[in-house]
Amino acid sequence: MNEISGNKWVYAFDEVDEAQEFMNGDWDGVRGLLGGKGANLGDMTRIGVPVPPGFTITTEACNAYLQAEGTFPDGMITQVSEKLRKVEETTEKSFGDPDSPLLVSCRSGAKFSMPGMMDTVLNIGMNDGVVKGLIGLTDDEHFVYDSYRRLVQMFGSVVLGVRDEPFEYVLEQYRDRRGVASDSDLTADDFRSITEEFKAIVERYAGRSFPDDPAEQLRLAIEAVFRSWNGKRAIDYRNAAGIPHDLGTAVNIQTMVFGNMGEDSATGVAMSRNATTGEPHLEGDYLTNAQGEDVVAGIRTTKPMDQLAEEMPDLHREFSEIAGRLEQHYREMQDMEFTIERGKLWILQTRNGKRTAQAAVRIAVDMTDEGLIARNDALMRVTPAQIDFFLHPSFAFEAKKEAKDEGRHLATGLNVSPGAAVGVVAFDADLAERWANEGKDVIMVRPETKPDDVHGMLACNGILTSRGGRTSHAALVARQFGKPAVVGAEELSIDLGERVLRVGDRVVREGEEISIDGTNGDVIVGVVATQTPDLENEWLKKLLEWADEVRDIGVWTNADYPDDARVARSYGAEGIGLTRTEHMFFDQSRLPIVQKMITATIPADRSDALEQLLPFQREDFAGLFRAMDGLPVTIRLIDPPLHEFLPSFEELTTDLTDLKIRIQSAGSLKEINDLLSKIEEEEHMLARVESLRETNPMLGLRGVRLGIVLPGLTKMQVRAIFEAACLVADEGVDVHPKIMIPLTAHVNELARQRTELEEEAKAVMAEKSIEVSYEFGTMIEIPRAALTADQIAEHAEFISFGTNDLTQMTFGISRDDAEKAFLVQYLEEGILDANPFATIDADGVGELMKIAVEKGRSTRHDLNAGICGEHGGDPDSIALCRRLGLDYVSCSPPRVPVARLAAAQAAIKEPLD
Amino acid sequence: MNEISGNKWVYAFDEVDEAQEFMNGDWDGVRGLLGGKGANLGDMTRIGVPVPPGFTITTEACNAYLQAEGTFPDGMITQVSEKLRKVEETTEKSFGDPDSPLLVSCRSGAKFSMPGMMDTVLNIGMNDGVVKGLIGLTDDEHFVYDSYRRLVQMFGSVVLGVRDEPFEYVLEQYRDRRGVASDSDLTADDFRSITEEFKAIVERYAGRSFPDDPAEQLRLAIEAVFRSWNGKRAIDYRNAAGIPHDLGTAVNIQTMVFGNMGEDSATGVAMSRNATTGEPHLEGDYLTNAQGEDVVAGIRTTKPMDQLAEEMPDLHREFSEIAGRLEQHYREMQDMEFTIERGKLWILQTRNGKRTAQAAVRIAVDMTDEGLIARNDALMRVTPAQIDFFLHPSFAFEAKKEAKDEGRHLATGLNVSPGAAVGVVAFDADLAERWANEGKDVIMVRPETKPDDVHGMLACNGILTSRGGRTSHAALVARQFGKPAVVGAEELSIDLGERVLRVGDRVVREGEEISIDGTNGDVIVGVVATQTPDLENEWLKKLLEWADEVRDIGVWTNADYPDDARVARSYGAEGIGLTRTEHMFFDQSRLPIVQKMITATIPADRSDALEQLLPFQREDFAGLFRAMDGLPVTIRLIDPPLHEFLPSFEELTTDLTDLKIRIQSAGSLKEINDLLSKIEEEEHMLARVESLRETNPMLGLRGVRLGIVLPGLTKMQVRAIFEAACLVADEGVDVHPKIMIPLTAHVNELARQRTELEEEAKAVMAEKSIEVSYEFGTMIEIPRAALTADQIAEHAEFISFGTNDLTQMTFGISRDDAEKAFLVQYLEEGILDANPFATIDADGVGELMKIAVEKGRSTRHDLNAGICGEHGGDPDSIALCRRLGLDYVSCSPPRVPVARLAAAQAAIKEPLD
Repeated sequence: MNEISGNKWVYAFDEVDEAQEFMNGDWDGVRGLLGGKGANLGDMTRIGVPVPPGFTITTEACNAYLQAEGTFPDGMITQVSEKLRKVEETTEKSFGDPDSPLLVSCRSGAKFSMPGMMDTVLNIGMNDGVVKGLIGLTDDEHFVYDSYRRLVQMFGSVVLGVRDEPFEYVLEQYRDRRGVASDSDLTADDFRSITEEFKAIVERYAGRSFPDDPAEQLRLAIEAVFRSWNGKRAIDYRNAAGIPHDLGTAVNIQTMVFGNMGEDSATGVAMSRNATTGEPHLEGDYLTNAQGEDVVAGIRTTKPMDQLAEEMPDLHREFSEIAGRLEQHYREMQDMEFTIERGKLWILQTRNGKRTAQAAVRIAVDMTDEGLIARNDALMRVTPAQIDFFLHPSFAFEAKKEAKDEGRHLATGLNVSPGAAVGVVAFDADLAERWANEGKDVIMVRPETKPDDVHGMLACNGILTSRGGRTSHAALVARQFGKPAVVGAEELSIDLGERVLRVGDRVVREGEEISIDGTNGDVIVGVVATQTPDLENEWLKKLLEWADEVRDIGVWTNADYPDDARVARSYGAEGIGLTRTEHMFFDQSRLPIVQKMITATIPADRSDALEQLLPFQREDFAGLFRAMDGLPVTIRLIDPPLHEFLPSFEELTTDLTDLKIRIQSAGSLKEINDLLSKIEEEEHMLARVESLRETNPMLGLRGVRLGIVLPGLTKMQVRAIFEAACLVADEGVDVHPKIMIPLTAHVNELARQRTELEEEAKAVMAEKSIEVSYEFGTMIEIPRAALTADQIAEHAEFISFGTNDLTQMTFGISRDDAEKAFLVQYLEEGILDANPFATIDADGVGELMKIAVEKGRSTRHDLNAGICGEHGGDPDSIALCRRLGLDYVSCSPPRVPVARLAAAQAAIKEPLD
Repeated sequence: MNEISGNKWVYAFDEVDEAQEFMNGDWDGVRGLLGGKGANLGDMTRIGVPVPPGFTITTEACNAYLQAEGTFPDGMITQVSEKLRKVEETTEKSFGDPDSPLLVSCRSGAKFSMPGMMDTVLNIGMNDGVVKGLIGLTDDEHFVYDSYRRLVQMFGSVVLGVRDEPFEYVLEQYRDRRGVASDSDLTADDFRSITEEFKAIVERYAGRSFPDDPAEQLRLAIEAVFRSWNGKRAIDYRNAAGIPHDLGTAVNIQTMVFGNMGEDSATGVAMSRNATTGEPHLEGDYLTNAQGEDVVAGIRTTKPMDQLAEEMPDLHREFSEIAGRLEQHYREMQDMEFTIERGKLWILQTRNGKRTAQAAVRIAVDMTDEGLIARNDALMRVTPAQIDFFLHPSFAFEAKKEAKDEGRHLATGLNVSPGAAVGVVAFDADLAERWANEGKDVIMVRPETKPDDVHGMLACNGILTSRGGRTSHAALVARQFGKPAVVGAEELSIDLGERVLRVGDRVVREGEEISIDGTNGDVIVGVVATQTPDLENEWLKKLLEWADEVRDIGVWTNADYPDDARVARSYGAEGIGLTRTEHMFFDQSRLPIVQKMITATIPADRSDALEQLLPFQREDFAGLFRAMDGLPVTIRLIDPPLHEFLPSFEELTTDLTDLKIRIQSAGSLKEINDLLSKIEEEEHMLARVESLRETNPMLGLRGVRLGIVLPGLTKMQVRAIFEAACLVADEGVDVHPKIMIPLTAHVNELARQRTELEEEAKAVMAEKSIEVSYEFGTMIEIPRAALTADQIAEHAEFISFGTNDLTQMTFGISRDDAEKAFLVQYLEEGILDANPFATIDADGVGELMKIAVEKGRSTRHDLNAGICGEHGGDPDSIALCRRLGLDYVSCSPPRVPVARLAAAQAAIKEPLD
C-alpha cells in the first residue's frame, strides 16, 4: 500500500486527472486505485460526457478499513462529506433535504470485474421526510414509495444482513391480496404500507431500526461494500478467476437519476454500432417514463433508438455525438446505459459491446478504414473462433429456444465439430450415402464410426454418435471435413437391429428428422431453422487479406480429394500439406481391390490388384494437381495398418458364432452346405485378419514399414503420382509434387525408400518424356525421427510434423483409449492444463519439435518444415509452430481461414527479431 | 606406396628388425609391408624360435607387379635369388641339387587374414632329377613320389590354371584299380605313374609343360600368388570383410620341412595351456613319422604331448621352453604347429589359442598372477558372453553330437535365454508346477506364454514355445529368471487338445522327455547329458573382484522375489533397481483377489479386495528387505493394464461360443440351466474385460495413471511397503526403500502421487513409531518424461530409465508385434544395425537419456539415475549408460556378473576425465 496516499482517500469523478498524476500517468494504476468502474466514470467525466456527479472511495481505503478490522482510515469520512457537498453544489440538491433531496447509489467496483459478487445499495438518502418532499416534487406517489420500499429492503439485506425471505413473504401476501402477478402492479398505498412492514422486519431481524439519517445510511452502506470484498462468494470467485485477494474494492457514490419522472424522462441501452451486423449505426432500445429494469424486463414494448430521433431530436443528436466521442476515446464499439431525467441526458455506464462474429469482423474492418484503429488492432479484435463461425451454419437463436421450450431437446453430447445440421436419421454409412445421393439431408447416427464409414460421413449433413470422445474417429473426420458433429451422447441408446434410437421412452426412427448443434452439443428432435453466414463477406475477406500481409508463416491444407482442395484454396490455402492416399482406398469401388491385394497369398495376385489400383490413384492425384495448379501438393504414401481395410476381428467372430449356431438347427442339406461354405470363407478372412492383428497397432506395421515390407505398394503409388504429374503437366498445369514418407524412425528407412522412389520416378518420366521437379521428404511423427533429424535431413528435403502421432508417442497416450480411461479426469483435476491432442504440449512435444528443426537445419539449412497434424488449425499451436521457425501449418480446409488469422495474431503478439 | 623402398622388395625372416626400422618402429606397418604371416615368421625368428628359414616378398612388390600389369618390379627377382642363396647357406641344401635338394613352399600372406582365399604351392624345387636324389637320401620312394605328384597337381591348378577334375579323375581310376579308398594307400609306383599322367594333363590343358627348372617354378608361383590378390574369391571376401583392395599380398618363401622322414621325425599341434580348463600345462597331439595332415585327419591315433617328454625328452624340453618364450612374447596363450625333421624341432606357426569360457577366465587370472599381463588386460581378455556361460548348464559336446547323429534333433528355434535344460514335456503352467513340485524336471511347452503362466515358468527347468520372438513374453521372463528357453520354434505343431507336439510325423507326448538348448536354439528328443560350470570358480571370483575395483558404475538387479534377490546378491548385486510388484499378483493364491478388485462394481468390494492383498504384499516386501539388508530396494508401484489380470477376450468369446453351441444340443433342463448360468457368469466377465480393452494397451491405462484413477491401490501398496519396512527395521534389518512411480509423463502426476504417498507413509510410521528413511522417484520410460526431466526432478530424488518402453515409444515400435512384422527383415537387410530391444539405440533413445540426465541434474545436481530395462545387462548398453553418467545399471540376476565385467571393460576402454 502506498503510504503517501494516506491523505487522499476519496476522488471526485472530475479529479481523475489528479489520480492519474498520482499514479505517474499509469492508467492501469488508476484502475487499481479507483476500481474499473470508478476509473471509467472519472474517464467519462474528463472527456465531457454527462455522468451523474459523484465520487470514488479508493481501494486503499477499503484495504485500510479491512486491515484495521472495521475502522475507516483517518480523514476518509471527512473527505466523503466534502465530496458530497461538492455533488450537492453541482446538482443543486441536498442530501436529506425534503425540498430538493439528493439521492445517491453506493456501488462496489474492483479493479477486475466481479459481476454480481459484491454489493450495491440504491436510493440512499430517503427517509419519511424526504419521501414527502419527493412526492411533492414528482407528484408520483407510486414511484416514490416503490423506491422507498426498495431502499429499506436493499439496505436491510445488504447492509444489515437480514435474509430476503421475510421481505419476499410480505410482497407475496400483497400480490395475493391484489390478485396480481407483478410487484409493479401494486398500488402506491400498498408500497407505503409495505415500507412500514419492511421497517418492522429490519427492526426485528437486524436488532436495530432502519436509519433515518441519510449520512448514517451512507456510512453503513460504504462499510457494507468494503466488507463484501471478503464475502464468501467474492473469495470463491477470486479463487476461481485467479484474482489476487489483496486488491480491495473501491466504492462509488453517485447521484441517482430517474428516467421515470414523466414524458420528458426516459431510459435505455444502446450500442454505438449494430451488434448483429456491425453496421455503423446507433442501435438500441429505450422507454420513456421508465426505469432501467423495465427495459430489460420486457414487460413494456421498447422503442428503437431511431424513434428517439423523432421524439427528442436534440437529445438523440447529443447521444449520437457522445457515442461517437466514446468510440473515439475507447477505440471500440460501445454498449451504453443512459437515462434522460426531465430532458437531461445522463450516461450511466459504457463498456465495450458484445457482438456476433459477423459484427466483430465488420466493426474491426470499418474502424480501421475510419482511421480509428490500426490494421493490427483490427486483426487482434477478432478471435479465431469467430472466423470459424463464418464457416458453419448455426441454428437461429429463436428457433432453437422454441424447440427447447416445446420439449424437443433429446440429449447433449460433446461438441466436437461446430455448426448446425438438420436431416433424416440414417443408421449406416451406405444408407446415408444413398439417401444423400437422392437429395435428402441426412444425419448419420452410429454408436461410433470406423474408417469404412467415411463415405457415409462425407455424404451426410452431420454426424451423431453415442460413444467416443473429442479425438474419436468420428470427431477427427468430422472436423477434417467441416461436418457438424456431436459425439459421445451417452443418453442415446441406438438399436441397429430395430433401427431406432431411444432416450428413455422417446423414440426416433430411421428416416425421421433430427437437428444437431455441433457448436454446443445439443440434439433436438425435428427441424430447427438454420442460418448460414457468408464466407464471401467483404469485410472478412479484407480482414483475412490483412492477416496474410502480417503473418510470417504459411497456411496450407490437408486435403484428400479434389473437391476438398478447391474449397481449401478458395479459403486461402497456399498448398496441400497432407494428402492421405489411403483415404482413397476406402472408396466402395476400390475397397474390394485393396482387400484382394492384402489377402493375396501369391505375389501374382497382389501385383494384379496393385495394377488395378494404379489408374484410380493416378486419377486421384491428377485431380489434386489440377485443383492446386501452381501450388505444392504433399502426398503421403500409404500409412495405416492393413487390417484397417479388412472387416474387424470381432465382427468376423460374431458372424462365425452366429453361423455355427445356425447350422445346428439347419433344415436342409442345401442350407447346411451353404452355411458351411460361408463359414469356410469367413474363416479364411479371419485367418488373414488374425495374422495382421497387432497388440499395439499404432506402433506396428504401418507407414514406411509397409512400404519396405510390401515394395510393390510404394512403387504403385509413386508410379501413380508421376504418371498423374506428367499427365497434367502436359495439360499445362504447373505441378509441384512433394512426396512424403510416413512414420520414419530411422534414416535408413528413408534412404531405402528414396532409392526405390527415384528409380520409379525416373522410369515414368522417361516413358512420358516429361521432367517434373519434385521434392522428397518425411513426416516427423516418431520421437526418434525428431531426435535424429540431422541424419534424416541428409535425405529429406522437407519435414512435416505429424503431431497427432508425435503426441501419442511422446506422451505415451493412445488417442483411441485415453479420453475414456483417464484423460478427461486429468483435465478435470488440473493434472493437465490442456488436452494435448487439441493444443501442442509445448514442454514435451514442442521441445522435440524444436530439437528436430534445429538438428534438421544444422544439416540442411534450408530444410522446409511444416506441421500437418490436427494441431495445425489450433491458434496456440500455430503460435508455437511460428516460434519454432516452421515454414507452414497445414490444417483441414475449414480451419484455413482460422489459421490465417491466428498466424497473423501470433506475428503481432510476438514480433520476431 | 613408399618410393624409397623401391630398392628393397624382399626381406629374409631374420631381417625383420630392418623392416621395422624402415617402418619407424611401427609393428602394424611391418604387418602391412610383410603381411601378417611374414611379420609373424620374422618375429619368431627374431626371438630365436626355430622357424624354417625363408624370406618374404613385400606387399609393395605385389602392388607394383599388379600396377605394371604383370611385370615384376626392377630388382625383385635378383633379391629373391640372393635371399634364396642365403637360405641355401643356412640349410646347407641347394635349390635343384639332387644331392641335397632344397624344397620350398610359396604362400600368400596379406595384412589381414583371408583364410583359404588366396593360393599356396608346396614342394617347389622338385623335378625328375631331384626326385631321384631325394629317394637316395630318404630311402622313401612312396613319400617322394607322393610329394612330386602333389607338386605337379598343385602347380598345374594354382599356377597354370588347370581345373582339378582331370587330376581327380586319374586318382579315382588308380584307387579303383587298387580297390582302396584313400590316396595314401596307393603305392610308390602308382604315384610315379600318376606324376607322369599329371604332367601330361598339364601339357594338354595348360598348353605348356610342367617346368623342370626350380627357379622357373618359383617365379611362376610368385606371380600366381600376386595375381590371386585380385581373384574373384579374394575380392568378394574383402568386400564382405571390409578390407581395402589396395593393400596387396606378401609372398612367403619358406624351406619345406618334413615330419615323415622316419622315427626321429614327428609333427603336431600344441597349446601352451589347457584350452578346456586353462591349466598352465602344455597340451596337444602329435604323431611320429607323419605329415601335418595326418594329425588333423584322425586316421592314426595321436599321442598326447606328455608322451613326447618320454619319447624325445630333449625336444619336449625345447618345445616347452619355446612355448613359454612365445607366451612371454605375445602375452597370450599360444596355439602352435610344429614339425620335427630328423631330430630337429621347427615351429611352423603360432597364434593366440581358442579356449572355453572356463579356460579364458583361468588363463587371464593366472597370467596376471604370473606378472605376464596387467589386471586390466585380464579383464579385457574375457568376453561378457563367456561370463554368461558360467551361469548356465550346457550340453556335453559329445552327448549332443551323439543325439544329433541318432536323428533325435527335432527343431531349431530362437536361442533367447542361454543354457541347457532337460525334462518331461508339460503343456500348461499348472501341470508344470505340479510335476516340478513332485520333484520332476519339467520343460514347459506352449504355443506362447502369458503373464498368468509365470508360476509354471518359474517351476520348470526350461521353456519352449512355437511362437514369439526375442522380446516375447516367454523370452523376457526366461531371461529374467535365467531359465533356458527356445522360442518361436515354428516347425513344432502343438496340439493342446491331444496333448502332443508334432514335427512332421514325429510325435512327442506330454510327459515324455525332451532336451532344449537355449544357447543355440536346438530342440532334441530324449535326454542329452548336461554339465554345469561352477560360479564358485575361484578364478572367476577373482576376476569379478578385479572388475569391481575398476568399474565406476553400480550393478544392481531386477528382482521380484526374495529368492531372486538372494541369488542376485550372491552374484554381486549392490541393490535392487526394480521390483515389479504386479508379478506378485499373478501368484495363484492372489489372482482371484486381484480379479475381485478389478471386477468390483461397488467401492466397498474393491476396498475389501485391497485389504486382503495388503498382508500378501507386506510379506513380499519384508522378504525382499531382509534379503537386501543394508542395500537399497527399489519398488515400482503397479504398472500393467488391469486386463492383464483377467482372462483374455478371445478366450472368453471362444468359451462363450462353445457354450452357446452346446446349449443347442443340451439334453436335460438341468444341463440347460447349468449352461445358462455359466454363460451369464462368463458374459459378466466379458463385459468387464471389454470395458478394459484398449486399442493400444501399451499407451493406455497403466502405470501412474492407474495409481491416479484407482487411488486405493497406490495407498495399499505404499502401506504394505512401509508396514514391511517398519517390521524388518524392528528386527534389526538395515532397510532402504526407494519408491518408484511407473510411466510418468507429466510432473503433475508425480506431484500428486508424492502427496498421497507421503501422507500414507507418515501415517504408517506414526502407527509403528518407527522412522524409515526412503527415497521417492520415477521411471523415465515415456519420451516426454525425459524431455521434461528438469521439471520431474523437482519431485523425484531418483530416476530410472525403463528402456524397454522408452525404446518402444521413441522408436514407435511395439515389442509384441515388431519382430514378426518387420524388425527381423530390418536387421537382415541392414536397415538397423542392431535390435534396439537388445542394445540401446544410442542415436535415438540414448539421446533422450542424455537430455534427461542433463536436464534432471540441472534441477537436482545429485539426482540419482539408473536403468532397469532389459538393456541393463547388455555390454554395449552398459558402456552407453556409463558415458551418460548413470549411477547404476540394474539387470536380471543372471546378468549381474556379466554386467560387472562389462562395466569394468567400459571403464578400461574409455577412461573418463
